[in-house]
Amino acid sequence: MRQPLTRELHDLLERGRDRQLRLAVTGLSRSGKTAFLTSLVNQLRHAGLEARLDLLPAARDGRLLGARRVEQHDLGVPRFPFDRAMSALDDRPPRWPEPTRGISELRLVLRYRPQRPGLMGGETRRLTLDLFDYPGEWLLDLPLLGHDYPSWCRSQTGHGDAREALFADWQREVATLDPAREVDEGRLAEIAERYAEGLRAAREAGFSDLQPGRFLLPGELEGAPVLQFFPLPGIADADPAQLAQLPPESLYATLARRFRHYQQHIVRPFYRDHFRHFDRQIVLVDILGALNAGPERFEDLSRALGRLMQSFDYGRRSLLSRLFAPRIDRLAIAATKADHVTPEQHARMTGLIETLLAEPLKDLHFANVPVRALSLAAIRATEAREVHHQGQRQPALSGTTLAGEEALLFPGEVPSRLPDADFWARQGFTFTAFRPLPRDAGALPHIRMDAALDWLIGDKLQ
Amino acid sequence: MRQPLTRELHDLLERGRDRQLRLAVTGLSRSGKTAFLTSLVNQLRHAGLEARLDLLPAARDGRLLGARRVEQHDLGVPRFPFDRAMSALDDRPPRWPEPTRGISELRLVLRYRPQRPGLMGGETRRLTLDLFDYPGEWLLDLPLLGHDYPSWCRSQTGHGDAREALFADWQREVATLDPAREVDEGRLAEIAERYAEGLRAAREAGFSDLQPGRFLLPGELEGAPVLQFFPLPGIADADPAQLAQLPPESLYATLARRFRHYQQHIVRPFYRDHFRHFDRQIVLVDILGALNAGPERFEDLSRALGRLMQSFDYGRRSLLSRLFAPRIDRLAIAATKADHVTPEQHARMTGLIETLLAEPLKDLHFANVPVRALSLAAIRATEAREVHHQGQRQPALSGTTLAGEEALLFPGEVPSRLPDADFWARQGFTFTAFRPLPRDAGALPHIRMDAALDWLIGDKLQ
Repeated sequence: MRQPLTRELHDLLERGRDRQLRLAVTGLSRSGKTAFLTSLVNQLRHAGLEARLDLLPAARDGRLLGARRVEQHDLGVPRFPFDRAMSALDDRPPRWPEPTRGISELRLVLRYRPQRPGLMGGETRRLTLDLFDYPGEWLLDLPLLGHDYPSWCRSQTGHGDAREALFADWQREVATLDPAREVDEGRLAEIAERYAEGLRAAREAGFSDLQPGRFLLPGELEGAPVLQFFPLPGIADADPAQLAQLPPESLYATLARRFRHYQQHIVRPFYRDHFRHFDRQIVLVDILGALNAGPERFEDLSRALGRLMQSFDYGRRSLLSRLFAPRIDRLAIAATKADHVTPEQHARMTGLIETLLAEPLKDLHFANVPVRALSLAAIRATEAREVHHQGQRQPALSGTTLAGEEALLFPGEVPSRLPDADFWARQGFTFTAFRPLPRDAGALPHIRMDAALDWLIGDKLQ
Repeated sequence: MRQPLTRELHDLLERGRDRQLRLAVTGLSRSGKTAFLTSLVNQLRHAGLEARLDLLPAARDGRLLGARRVEQHDLGVPRFPFDRAMSALDDRPPRWPEPTRGISELRLVLRYRPQRPGLMGGETRRLTLDLFDYPGEWLLDLPLLGHDYPSWCRSQTGHGDAREALFADWQREVATLDPAREVDEGRLAEIAERYAEGLRAAREAGFSDLQPGRFLLPGELEGAPVLQFFPLPGIADADPAQLAQLPPESLYATLARRFRHYQQHIVRPFYRDHFRHFDRQIVLVDILGALNAGPERFEDLSRALGRLMQSFDYGRRSLLSRLFAPRIDRLAIAATKADHVTPEQHARMTGLIETLLAEPLKDLHFANVPVRALSLAAIRATEAREVHHQGQRQPALSGTTLAGEEALLFPGEVPSRLPDADFWARQGFTFTAFRPLPRDAGALPHIRMDAALDWLIGDKLQ
């Protein structure tokens, strides 16, 4: 047992010297987490060589010498599949990397020359950078920690939007159940599966504000009773004293027990074992995809993001700071896939995300968590062009669509504030998905990855 | 939190009254675990109705009234997929259920009338039967707990049989490594993947004695460093003092650290959290499949079983009883798929398995663990027939092969002792795999499931 101890001690010392940083990347499904982390590792490995990182001073000044992958701290967490992602990008034709499904980890050691060499220090210093990738859906479960089962039921029923129709099968079956009566295990599993199908259908339809998050990414818990519960409509209006007296075999008591197990054994351990150790965090948002999907999905994304951001609100009265003691000291919120609109729209993307998250951002400022919004493309898939149209020079994008067709187009204008009925009526925006550019051996082409890196790790490389 | 406590208490009281029994089913891949557990649940649910369970006195006497599925104890363990298995058997044509891949659980409550009603008792009593299903491969990892990394390396290299060829790719790469030098993370992952490929190829080729077991069924640990290690050939002959001085980044220290993590965080928790709570255990063995695969695989199965059985040897000096305090008080070892040979061969199957396991059985008797060997078919797929051949009546089987052909055949004689060169030279045995019989609504047809049930739970139903 000697070496692990030495290792722990080493980690502790590195932290003490401010030479270790734990950076987490999250975002809802398809927000571009895998592409972002792949590009981040790729840029840092090519720093000092051909990577273009002018907005990261340590790189611009030639002080960042490169990065090496070393063994991660927690051997039981899957390693971020960087090599697999790079080979997808190197395919002919290039493919986007497959999305990751749970938490993954990768440790880099960066070598750099400090801006002012210390009296004691040698020529170079090292920064150990732990990178984490986890599904944003997990953060949607935080509010669930503040509920008991009846109040959670109230929060999850009666959305009154297009989602309801997707849960019609479940609705029909749950209506036949009596909360006071014993329910057959098999039947309960069936109805829970209807509920999970509703959640999956809602995600397919572009909805984001979905609970419980693990129902969508069950992993090894597939088939476990802890993932077989659902809200009971109307139960929040029942008499709590009467509910408490129902026998343990009753439907109500069974569902409430599973809800508590989900809270205690699924949601809580993620915050306790992972989340509260992160130093820096970037949240990725596919705002263009939501603009493309229409007003209802855009509204839903907005709600989901508001809920997700609660995990970063360390105000004194927040649920999170009462339960855990998180320590994220810097946060970035990035609108991804900026290469899918023309360059003059990028500022609007940033503006839109700031508007969309105005309320959570206010809370974060109040809680004194430094936060920055930006737009970026982790792996650039298009080239900016200009076309002449009716005697005017107009911006355009050229690239290859996922179907393999060469395209030259103008996707439309991004609204810089929340889109109104007028915008939706005009259908002002048409998102076309592009495949990655064929690449040479060098660093991946990007848009403002260096700005993101500067905000997230730049101060540690001075 | 009131109800979980009540529940724990309930469990404890039930145990105290001897009314709860935790029965585990294991066996190597393809030994028939899923079919066995499916049939067991099916028989108990049909007990008192049309199930034929004459060798289980409680059922024969009409005292066993039936079984009901209730919520299992550990909500975080997948439920055994009984319904899915039954629908596979009900397909047209019937299919064998898909194998389970990790641990799963199912809780039944049996109602029965005691043989002698007590003064206090009512008419009927209840027995809570917890059923567990887990891969026998996990038990192959027990000896690994008794090793340090160098001695494990010695135990895993130089088998000198046909397996070596399957690891040639890994051998070639590992030969290029220097244990004292730092190794690139990515390269290490690649070489570990070569080792896992070797293990998978060995399993495909019919070998059973494979370590580490989780490399073959990684589940959520896919891609985690803890599943990326391998033995270093020859390292056991190096000077331990020198090895201990190698830096933590060296290949040797990295592999040794992962080996220890595997021991402490993968192997040990299974024994601590699950295994030591089992009351009864049945080990299933596909002895016919091994006979069919030839002498080398048969020999390998024998070694694997010997190793697997160490988990049940509670002799005072055993590794297991030093580490944990298991309490299995009754053990069954069953040769499965008895319906794939003619009935007069069944006694030979039992004899063969007793011979094959002679050494472990001796140890178990010495450790005072009651154990019984038997042969059975959990779900009968053939009918026994007689054919007239050269004026003599000969036994035969009729059934439908997996390819869908009606067959009437005599698979051959099972040797009642360890097969000798003569047996293998004659190729005396031809195993044909049959698909399940089309079934009516009643209980599944079986061979001696009732004998197995009597040995495993009969005494609790008196």
